[in-house]
Amino acid sequence: MAGNTWGERFTVTTFGESHGPAIGCIIDGCPPGIEISEAELQADLDRRKPGTSRYVTQRREDDAARIVSGVFEGKTTGTPISLIIENTDQRSRDYSKIKDVFRPNHADYAYLQKYGIRDYRGGGRSSARETATRVAAGAVARKVLAERFGVRIQGYLAQMGPLTLGCDDLDAANQNPFFCAEPARLEELENYINALRKDGDSIGARINVIATGVPPGWGEPVFDRLDAEIAKALMSINAVKGVEIGDGFAVVNQRGSEHRDEMAPEGFSSNHSGGIQGGISSGQTIRASMALKPTSSIIIPGDTIDTQGNATQMRTTGRHDPCVGLRATPIAEAMLALTLLDHALRHRAQNADVQNTLSPIAAERD
Amino acid sequence: MAGNTWGERFTVTTFGESHGPAIGCIIDGCPPGIEISEAELQADLDRRKPGTSRYVTQRREDDAARIVSGVFEGKTTGTPISLIIENTDQRSRDYSKIKDVFRPNHADYAYLQKYGIRDYRGGGRSSARETATRVAAGAVARKVLAERFGVRIQGYLAQMGPLTLGCDDLDAANQNPFFCAEPARLEELENYINALRKDGDSIGARINVIATGVPPGWGEPVFDRLDAEIAKALMSINAVKGVEIGDGFAVVNQRGSEHRDEMAPEGFSSNHSGGIQGGISSGQTIRASMALKPTSSIIIPGDTIDTQGNATQMRTTGRHDPCVGLRATPIAEAMLALTLLDHALRHRAQNADVQNTLSPIAAERD
Amino acid sequence: MAGNTWGERFTVTTFGESHGPAIGCIIDGCPPGIEISEAELQADLDRRKPGTSRYVTQRREDDAARIVSGVFEGKTTGTPISLIIENTDQRSRDYSKIKDVFRPNHADYAYLQKYGIRDYRGGGRSSARETATRVAAGAVARKVLAERFGVRIQGYLAQMGPLTLGCDDLDAANQNPFFCAEPARLEELENYINALRKDGDSIGARINVIATGVPPGWGEPVFDRLDAEIAKALMSINAVKGVEIGDGFAVVNQRGSEHRDEMAPEGFSSNHSGGIQGGISSGQTIRASMALKPTSSIIIPGDTIDTQGNATQMRTTGRHDPCVGLRATPIAEAMLALTLLDHALRHRAQNADVQNTLSPIAAERD
Amino acid sequence: MAGNTWGERFTVTTFGESHGPAIGCIIDGCPPGIEISEAELQADLDRRKPGTSRYVTQRREDDAARIVSGVFEGKTTGTPISLIIENTDQRSRDYSKIKDVFRPNHADYAYLQKYGIRDYRGGGRSSARETATRVAAGAVARKVLAERFGVRIQGYLAQMGPLTLGCDDLDAANQNPFFCAEPARLEELENYINALRKDGDSIGARINVIATGVPPGWGEPVFDRLDAEIAKALMSINAVKGVEIGDGFAVVNQRGSEHRDEMAPEGFSSNHSGGIQGGISSGQTIRASMALKPTSSIIIPGDTIDTQGNATQMRTTGRHDPCVGLRATPIAEAMLALTLLDHALRHRAQNADVQNTLSPIAAERD
Repeated sequence: MAGNTWGERFTVTTFGESHGPAIGCIIDGCPPGIEISEAELQADLDRRKPGTSRYVTQRREDDAARIVSGVFEGKTTGTPISLIIENTDQRSRDYSKIKDVFRPNHADYAYLQKYGIRDYRGGGRSSARETATRVAAGAVARKVLAERFGVRIQGYLAQMGPLTLGCDDLDAANQNPFFCAEPARLEELENYINALRKDGDSIGARINVIATGVPPGWGEPVFDRLDAEIAKALMSINAVKGVEIGDGFAVVNQRGSEHRDEMAPEGFSSNHSGGIQGGISSGQTIRASMALKPTSSIIIPGDTIDTQGNATQMRTTGRHDPCVGLRATPIAEAMLALTLLDHALRHRAQNADVQNTLSPIAAERD
Repeated sequence: MAGNTWGERFTVTTFGESHGPAIGCIIDGCPPGIEISEAELQADLDRRKPGTSRYVTQRREDDAARIVSGVFEGKTTGTPISLIIENTDQRSRDYSKIKDVFRPNHADYAYLQKYGIRDYRGGGRSSARETATRVAAGAVARKVLAERFGVRIQGYLAQMGPLTLGCDDLDAANQNPFFCAEPARLEELENYINALRKDGDSIGARINVIATGVPPGWGEPVFDRLDAEIAKALMSINAVKGVEIGDGFAVVNQRGSEHRDEMAPEGFSSNHSGGIQGGISSGQTIRASMALKPTSSIIIPGDTIDTQGNATQMRTTGRHDPCVGLRATPIAEAMLALTLLDHALRHRAQNADVQNTLSPIAAERD
Repeated sequence: MAGNTWGERFTVTTFGESHGPAIGCIIDGCPPGIEISEAELQADLDRRKPGTSRYVTQRREDDAARIVSGVFEGKTTGTPISLIIENTDQRSRDYSKIKDVFRPNHADYAYLQKYGIRDYRGGGRSSARETATRVAAGAVARKVLAERFGVRIQGYLAQMGPLTLGCDDLDAANQNPFFCAEPARLEELENYINALRKDGDSIGARINVIATGVPPGWGEPVFDRLDAEIAKALMSINAVKGVEIGDGFAVVNQRGSEHRDEMAPEGFSSNHSGGIQGGISSGQTIRASMALKPTSSIIIPGDTIDTQGNATQMRTTGRHDPCVGLRATPIAEAMLALTLLDHALRHRAQNADVQNTLSPIAAERD
Repeated sequence: MAGNTWGERFTVTTFGESHGPAIGCIIDGCPPGIEISEAELQADLDRRKPGTSRYVTQRREDDAARIVSGVFEGKTTGTPISLIIENTDQRSRDYSKIKDVFRPNHADYAYLQKYGIRDYRGGGRSSARETATRVAAGAVARKVLAERFGVRIQGYLAQMGPLTLGCDDLDAANQNPFFCAEPARLEELENYINALRKDGDSIGARINVIATGVPPGWGEPVFDRLDAEIAKALMSINAVKGVEIGDGFAVVNQRGSEHRDEMAPEGFSSNHSGGIQGGISSGQTIRASMALKPTSSIIIPGDTIDTQGNATQMRTTGRHDPCVGLRATPIAEAMLALTLLDHALRHRAQNADVQNTLSPIAAERD
């Protein structure tokens, strides 16, 4: 495959450029008989949508996903589900400033070197706009995971620049534009963003995402381990530069006697592993984390070159996020959902007949 | 695929259990006409091999890879290359202690829940022994990368427990059992490991790996980005819990004005991105890092359950590494090689005709 | 993958039901820099389109393909090309007769048994309407094959019921609604179809398709042989029940001394093999043939059951083709194009560096 | 993938050359808990083995398959099953006659054009020897199909040259070296082969293969239809030039009123479709047929060229089959088994939850 498809059994193939007529995707392999509506997709799309708060880009998109196939009389039929989102804010504008210049730290230069041609309008295919289709597909996956497997996924902002945030109330993460699960810190976050905007600069972020209800047994040794696929899933999101499972990089300075999650008939004593052992889910909560870089689309001018190789400068003046990580939580949730559902289906393809003599033990309480 | 295959165009499918008769792999898609010998594979295998120093497990394996197909008169023919490594140290022994007990933090429990059956001898398929086949396949990939694409790959130990290590001399990393590129610190590492062994405990590690000579253009948007595939590749290695590209998690507290790698006709000003922009190689040095957990196979007893669900304890007395990360450098190099070569071939499948008007600019000096 | 994707390097994923709002596809892996326009796609779509003559179904569809992504300023960019064809003739109608009854020899029964739900409107996903998207994607593939590889593809009607047809003038096949390459026989064909329609019955057909200009070397041993992939490609077309390469079933009664295509410095002496040896193209003309069954959608009543398992009868009264094979030529051409281009890209992924000492010898003249 | 892998969920990757040290394969995705032994594999391998009668090649191979991984205490574990068959008859011999000359109608020329290098010993990778690994893997698939799904597969010789054979007794096909299911014709077959051998010539053959017990629902629309995959499976066998499902090419001259398999509560009235409707199994017997060309390895000299492009002649004197089709029945059975099991697993990945209200109706009696 040429790179625009996720998954093996529950697959998502996306298309579309930032300023083309539409973006969309085809979902193949969805179990039949699942009730799904455009309104359900919309709920997730609205969470990712630009322009929803003053803390994110002011691009105005309805982001309304239309179901074009694969759903009949309100239920999935098992045939490909096609979702299309029109680019309503695709107004003609002046691209002369970016047409012949590479924005530093963007994909502009790499795309032109790869393909010898690029759609320079708003980043074309490399724009994070593409992630709207992931969120829409992820909404379908989340529905299937919830209804058929009892799995629930939720993410939250764990850090923005120097501000490290706790997880006091996971539900609260859906109630504020920061996806912050420590509501007492909201004003602090707002002040930080406002100061950043005055500086004309941007900042990185860390997003945590968890999945509860995953039974033991998902994940395929030895290359397609569940943790390896989650790492790919999260790293495939624009601006992500690091991924952790469970304790992540903290394990470098942990001892075995401290790290190992001991087991008892009542359940696991801890969850340093993040719910995955040997690449296979253990029945505990899946815990993953990702780091997003600060966008380089800032008003502070930066050195670059043009398509002729001449030195020049670039200064971004349009609508952009001071912290692109603030919109990444729904995307991380979507990618985790796509990964888990794909593995659920792969697992049962091979192991639907397995009779276990030992019931899964309880997951510890996180 | 059921999980034991890596890659799309240069693929590696591995087989074998820790204490079965042999392990091995099939490489498919290797370009023809490459000179390759068993001796070349051996050089890489020896670097990973157990029993080479007192700091790693004392299992004795020759780890001699035999080329069974795909090479004729010393050259690859384009047909599948099969490599087989006999398990010479597969002596009969007493498995009664682990037959019915799950080692905590190992794959034992997850495998049994997944498959309803498990080969308990030395971890069976979940053992890190499988990585020997990756190293052998990686040796082939490194040869092709060097000869046909001018790419060179090298890893080193960046941290072991509290000891953070620099990269003073990359070549030195191949001269000591720690893969340490700061030779002045070797005694310190030895002392740390010795103390750890006295404690009967284990420790985590961080490995860095770099690739030089990668041209711009490798990597497939949007899911099969080069960084996403590297993340999967490294996370698929036993014990890995975190992966970073470029500055990794440090980007969370970086500003855009600091992070962005500015460009000039003479080259890039910095390489915070680790050589990948928008998921596509930029022509700079590829930089990745991974965190390995401490092994839970230690002599300090740990709580666990048996296959009937009863509480019990486990204490590992056999040959094991106090720091499994010490043998991970060649594996990381192999996985990076497999990933890069696969993408080199995928890239040219689509883009062999591309005529670029702009020559790649220089990579900055790391 | 769940079955709706063709190819590995040049992939086509299709979606859409016969009476849903639209059908379409995503092409991934298309080489960049190819000029492509909606008008070019239209030329091929018009050849397959229903309602173009009185010999095929009178369903009226514009079959206008809209390019939604992957083409910028008239050229492919290397990113996914999305094509959408609206179902303009999707008027509300009375489906009560087929809602609860399985049409004999259609996919109705099999789909319901597989998925437990089916879109009964016009056959839903199993309708041959889906092949319009193949023709559109095939038009892109044919353009790339012609421009980058010098390959030309053409099909024609070789048999309809008892009427066996020659290939006097391949270009003529594009000038008549039968895709008949023996123009002197057109009246005979018309008379046959008219008589058939009076009987309310249908008839089978055989389509031949050839590709010229294919260089030696395309095709991947041992499973993904070029002939094996062509067989799958043609058999995946609705109503096809048989596929041949070269002499096909005639080889059963050929002797080795008769069948073998001897070689001389001036070229091959014959082409019994249909241009493929050992699964790899030999440089000769690729010759394939396929058999299409008569449609079971006829006005003569047939025994069947309803969704409750009760006996009933079915009689098709709507718009249908007396010989569905008459519209299959463009579809066969499209599938052959998709197969060849995919293999062209796969071949060069692995073998772009190969330097041959022996120039290809001449293909014999068919 | 580079072509040496079959399947998506139950995959087989083969390796090995005709005169290399060994051939073999890796099976991935096999359900766990299936009892399997080397003796069982042997039963199938013996049926394909050369040297078993005077009617086939006199190459002497033990063809003993060794299970190297994936089976523990006599049962499959769900991890990769590796099978290795040593080439015991790989004696050093004089290849000077074929080293620089292309055998007409063999893969020699195409391989050299593709890869720029070839293993000329006995055809190297393109030799039918590779099919021994398919038979071994097929034996595993047949065991799983029988035990978990109740499916049984059997093939027989349907035609050899001018001699068309019936199917009087399917079990008898396993009792004679021709796989003939019309035992009364055995002497006729023997006489034909003997006369052919005196002529120094070879002849083609047709093999039929059927599968009983396949439930409705296997097969993935729209490209990976069950019939399309069977077509690929059979066409991927050496020397096959045509494939039919059900009535095959006979449908070209059938009328819809004759061809359609009508349905009644008691079952289907006929099986012209060969058990597949719309690419999905209908619950009837799967019927497929394939045509094998006569081998061009005959003692009658044939014109060819050498690797320098000069005219020369080739005359095969070694051990070869006058009718390669005589050994193809077990291979066809194996490929059908691999295809069906793969689709069984793919089907349940997506549809394991489906609750059908209508029980499958009875298959007609063939």
